[in-house]
Amino acid sequence: MNSSRRLGIDIGGTKCMAVAIDAHGAVIDQQRRPTPQHPDELIQTVIELAQSMKPWDSIGVGMPGLVDRSGVIRAAPNLVEIKNLRVGELLGKEFGCFVYVDSDATCAGAAEWKVGAARGVDDVVMVTLGTGIGGGVIAGGVLIRGANGFTGEIGHMVVDPDGRPCLCGRRGCWERYASGAGLAWLAHSAHDGQGVARAIELAGGKPGDVRGEHVTGAAREGDTDALAVVDDYGRWVALGLVNLTNILDPAMFVLGGGLAVGADVFLAPIRHWFGELLYAPDLRPHPALVFAQLGERAGAIGAAMLADLH
Amino acid sequence: MNSSRRLGIDIGGTKCMAVAIDAHGAVIDQQRRPTPQHPDELIQTVIELAQSMKPWDSIGVGMPGLVDRSGVIRAAPNLVEIKNLRVGELLGKEFGCFVYVDSDATCAGAAEWKVGAARGVDDVVMVTLGTGIGGGVIAGGVLIRGANGFTGEIGHMVVDPDGRPCLCGRRGCWERYASGAGLAWLAHSAHDGQGVARAIELAGGKPGDVRGEHVTGAAREGDTDALAVVDDYGRWVALGLVNLTNILDPAMFVLGGGLAVGADVFLAPIRHWFGELLYAPDLRPHPALVFAQLGERAGAIGAAMLADLH
Repeated sequence: MNSSRRLGIDIGGTKCMAVAIDAHGAVIDQQRRPTPQHPDELIQTVIELAQSMKPWDSIGVGMPGLVDRSGVIRAAPNLVEIKNLRVGELLGKEFGCFVYVDSDATCAGAAEWKVGAARGVDDVVMVTLGTGIGGGVIAGGVLIRGANGFTGEIGHMVVDPDGRPCLCGRRGCWERYASGAGLAWLAHSAHDGQGVARAIELAGGKPGDVRGEHVTGAAREGDTDALAVVDDYGRWVALGLVNLTNILDPAMFVLGGGLAVGADVFLAPIRHWFGELLYAPDLRPHPALVFAQLGERAGAIGAAMLADLH
Repeated sequence: MNSSRRLGIDIGGTKCMAVAIDAHGAVIDQQRRPTPQHPDELIQTVIELAQSMKPWDSIGVGMPGLVDRSGVIRAAPNLVEIKNLRVGELLGKEFGCFVYVDSDATCAGAAEWKVGAARGVDDVVMVTLGTGIGGGVIAGGVLIRGANGFTGEIGHMVVDPDGRPCLCGRRGCWERYASGAGLAWLAHSAHDGQGVARAIELAGGKPGDVRGEHVTGAAREGDTDALAVVDDYGRWVALGLVNLTNILDPAMFVLGGGLAVGADVFLAPIRHWFGELLYAPDLRPHPALVFAQLGERAGAIGAAMLADLH
């Protein structure tokens, strides 16, 4: 790295986070805005954020969904109005410079690998547990992008071909079970659809308002039903992690995203089920399972770092 | 590469194949033997093969199962008597040189990448469809080994958590459906367990003798029941390939292993289902789906190449 000031913007399903980082990856400025759903307004918001944080020497953008190597966002299940949006080109024209664009989870993975929980580890999978599940892959000491830049769409790994329908149009994607939305669904489905009584109380009495945090809250109080849901959730998370281990053999998984904030209650069930589901668990080292260190700014920090990783 | 003569030995579930290659990867000598099940006899067979093919300047060995970076085979579902066999050390003592050891599918992937179907492609997944399913991963122009050398155990990716029991102790592993054994099972299960009549005929009349080749034979004749099984099989293969695409975004899949010999009848169903199961299939390039070019010698050729890839 040099002495440049690098700007990174992470466009999430609900908010845009912008950071400026110094040569050591430390955040020296930050801003956030709600994410507009319309493509034109979205681009305008990013432009305003970037202008308000000048001066900077490079700019990188992280986005959800399929982001190709030329900076086009092909499709994003959580931003349904967006198809083939030429983010890199549109922003490049505005700023008169090359704009680095990659998927939000690849950015988060890069940040945790360079300045976060996975510093110095050559084989890492970043798993962002939020509304969906995203992934960033580092293998053999290299940030893996794939032929088109689409590496890490791990949430759409099918783990049950006859399972729940997914926003992507298929059935039984991992994120239908192991994301925050998956946790809420497991809680709703408990007790033949009656749900977890204590989680409903914590949500203010309405079953439809139960979210992941209410389930973890009830589990932390020791509520038996909530603990059963958390155990089931841990099994689904572990199932996907085992699949990724069989394919990529990482030394470490970094768990990030909104759900990782309450993740202390999940860790024991995930570890238990990981050991149950892994082939030959006694004959091999298990990958470390750690939490992300950079919190909600990981994607933006990684986006800022893209200039140094290309 | 230099002018050395390199020896490679691929230890399969039923046979051991040894080749000597020249500096261009061309095979200049080869031998084969049946694979003994007992570990001592297995090592002895490899030693005899290597001695009978002298002189050579380096030796590499490919093996099924979990082969770690120090040349220990931790476990192999298809060689049940083998646990923690120190192949690299035992052979190294015998020959007084370092012995390169890696998984058979990683070896096959390396060979197809360097001198076979995937020459010049930077992001490749090799898929060996045989008794089980093995994998080799090349990403970003690098042969990926993983933290312990266990990369590519793609056959044990769980695709149905309540599915068929697997030799590995879990349920619903991809290879239960998409391997040669999986194809035979799909054929046995057709028509509520009555099986595919024409395939049974081709197998000599006994339902228990039906193997993949009898199903593909019947399908090639246009038998409706066999074609339905082949379509179902194509869906299972495609499901795993789509999962791997979501995770790794390869430019190419190379299909190898015993089943790839009859694979012309599978290609159309696999392509069809791949398009059905992929997220946003119209908005992205699909990976090329090609057959391995090096046939049953791929693993041995790749084992011989390990000396140049380490």
